[in-house]
Amino acid sequence: MITELPPSLGVRGNEKIALDIINRIWGKRGVFTCTIGNTLTSTIPGVSEAGDTPELTLYTGPADAEYLVMGKVMCMKGIPINPGGIPTPATLTKAALELSRMPFCIINGGSKIPLNIPCIEVGGSCGDKITTGHTLKNVERSFEYGRILGEQLAASHDFVVISESCAGGTTTALAVLLAMGVIRENLVSSSSPKNPKQLKWDLVMEGFRNAGISIGDLADDPLKAIELFGDPMMPVNVGIVLGAAKHVPVIFGGGTQMAPLMAAAIKLDPSIVGNIMQGTTRWLLSDPNSSMVRIMEHISDSIPMVYINMDYSKSPYEGLQAYEWGFIKEGVGCGGSSVAAVIASEGRIDCDMLLDKVHELYKQIMNVD
Amino acid sequence: MITELPPSLGVRGNEKIALDIINRIWGKRGVFTCTIGNTLTSTIPGVSEAGDTPELTLYTGPADAEYLVMGKVMCMKGIPINPGGIPTPATLTKAALELSRMPFCIINGGSKIPLNIPCIEVGGSCGDKITTGHTLKNVERSFEYGRILGEQLAASHDFVVISESCAGGTTTALAVLLAMGVIRENLVSSSSPKNPKQLKWDLVMEGFRNAGISIGDLADDPLKAIELFGDPMMPVNVGIVLGAAKHVPVIFGGGTQMAPLMAAAIKLDPSIVGNIMQGTTRWLLSDPNSSMVRIMEHISDSIPMVYINMDYSKSPYEGLQAYEWGFIKEGVGCGGSSVAAVIASEGRIDCDMLLDKVHELYKQIMNVD
Repeated sequence: MITELPPSLGVRGNEKIALDIINRIWGKRGVFTCTIGNTLTSTIPGVSEAGDTPELTLYTGPADAEYLVMGKVMCMKGIPINPGGIPTPATLTKAALELSRMPFCIINGGSKIPLNIPCIEVGGSCGDKITTGHTLKNVERSFEYGRILGEQLAASHDFVVISESCAGGTTTALAVLLAMGVIRENLVSSSSPKNPKQLKWDLVMEGFRNAGISIGDLADDPLKAIELFGDPMMPVNVGIVLGAAKHVPVIFGGGTQMAPLMAAAIKLDPSIVGNIMQGTTRWLLSDPNSSMVRIMEHISDSIPMVYINMDYSKSPYEGLQAYEWGFIKEGVGCGGSSVAAVIASEGRIDCDMLLDKVHELYKQIMNVD
Repeated sequence: MITELPPSLGVRGNEKIALDIINRIWGKRGVFTCTIGNTLTSTIPGVSEAGDTPELTLYTGPADAEYLVMGKVMCMKGIPINPGGIPTPATLTKAALELSRMPFCIINGGSKIPLNIPCIEVGGSCGDKITTGHTLKNVERSFEYGRILGEQLAASHDFVVISESCAGGTTTALAVLLAMGVIRENLVSSSSPKNPKQLKWDLVMEGFRNAGISIGDLADDPLKAIELFGDPMMPVNVGIVLGAAKHVPVIFGGGTQMAPLMAAAIKLDPSIVGNIMQGTTRWLLSDPNSSMVRIMEHISDSIPMVYINMDYSKSPYEGLQAYEWGFIKEGVGCGGSSVAAVIASEGRIDCDMLLDKVHELYKQIMNVD
């Protein structure tokens, strides 16, 4: 029984529930999932920096998945970078998974580009632009497959981590949150320190006009909100949460893209509150241009935000220092997997170990010393 | 360190290696995989009894997988049965997985019928009839995906169990073994006590004629033998073994259908010997109409055959007693998962517990008291 968190972890929000959940899974065995998806939204210039160019954002998810599984990328040259050469947060995810030996599975929520790895299929496909007002097909099936998978994973693990790699995903997150009326202003994050908030807002409003939907209209129909404005990592992840969180704690591994999943999941099954928490990064929670904390105030006061206290400011590599300047911040479950690694190892894995491992991986993929 | 096996397990073949492997994974955490596949071979009347009719044999694999994951079958009515109402061995597999809480994943090696569950895709498809002399496509890709998956599973588990549900699979097994020259007579098993040995032999020989291949011609090219005469569970399973067995012990969960996989795997990487064993059933090893022991003499003297000592003779249900009369014997990794459950639980799970659980499951699915 721990009464306070190790220095590698911090909490925002409900500390009591955080400690309760963490105590129940301290030293236990979890499983990490990462769901890959795309919508064509990320190809609208200016929306997403999760990729060196708008076109390359479609390769970011598959490349992240290939990197996690194979340690190298097959679908494109190099690894996913943001403009300026800042490497994907999958480097931190991989560090956490390797150090903890946590089992993980990649789910193809709906990727435009084929994944060159064995992964779990759920019948999803790449979504359309958010401006169409109808982004997704097969939402019910992906959701149901997610639910089955959540049940299956919970039957053989002590906790489950969900996550995503889906470029343009903060825009779809914003749209689903607005459609559900969870928030009424743009509080979502961006992988760039210059969050293009007005552009995202305008695109979402165009989608709402084309769907004939106003803010809050879909408060009671989260799957409809996801079908009209969401991305393909959403239905399967909501399904996993509902399938798993009845049985074991679930960690939402990610930043503001997790918010619509939380809102949808607790709308569909309020009883899971108390068994779910967010796992994210210090970078995300200290972002001046978004506010997970304020979004959460509108979702629930009982979903703690647990973060990994990573600090790249003393890293010798500019590509990593950039995380301290507001780039990237979250993604590919880097926060959730790190939080899970600390918990599963009873604190043996800490931020220093993670940083050393990230450096080792960074050197390999960037071919530097 | 155990010096002898618990009464629930027995060994044929190399006991020293069996004890060495079992000691290395005693109380450790494994992962179970089951690869589903078909060839149209099973629809040739008389070949397969893994299904109530030749046509229904195509549903057996998907139905087994759905049953393991969901506890019910979606793709057909009822559960897979052999003629006479004998239920699928997946009942024992499910008992072992539930009691041990062992994580498992279903792989679609290549099923004719869609699987209504989330599962891992490897790019395979249903194979043609063995008589064509060219049963499979995409063997290299399935093999490579299997290898990647084997590496991934071994990175986060202490041992890996492979298995299959592929009707008609003893005929394809016979063909690959003959093509590789491992055996020169028909020693493979059948799910019926009346093993249609002559029919299988004739079909294989017709395939050989159409491919222009004689016994032993493909001794040095196991993947070619699999491409011409194999079934879609084979390439991915050989890949999993090669990816995993370099790192952790691998259990071949199954009967004589495992023989071509062993022969292929050690041909491609002889160094894995000492880290692999078979996990099967007493029923399979005591079958008078096949001989795993004699097949193994031709593969290696260093791959132990470890069996679960299940005995259904005192079961109140005829459908289960039939296992003692030579029906079913193996399949869906029922032996491998049971052996793994005993090992992972340090012997806490035994045959009595498995039998109780099988009865519980049997009552559910057969709607009896």
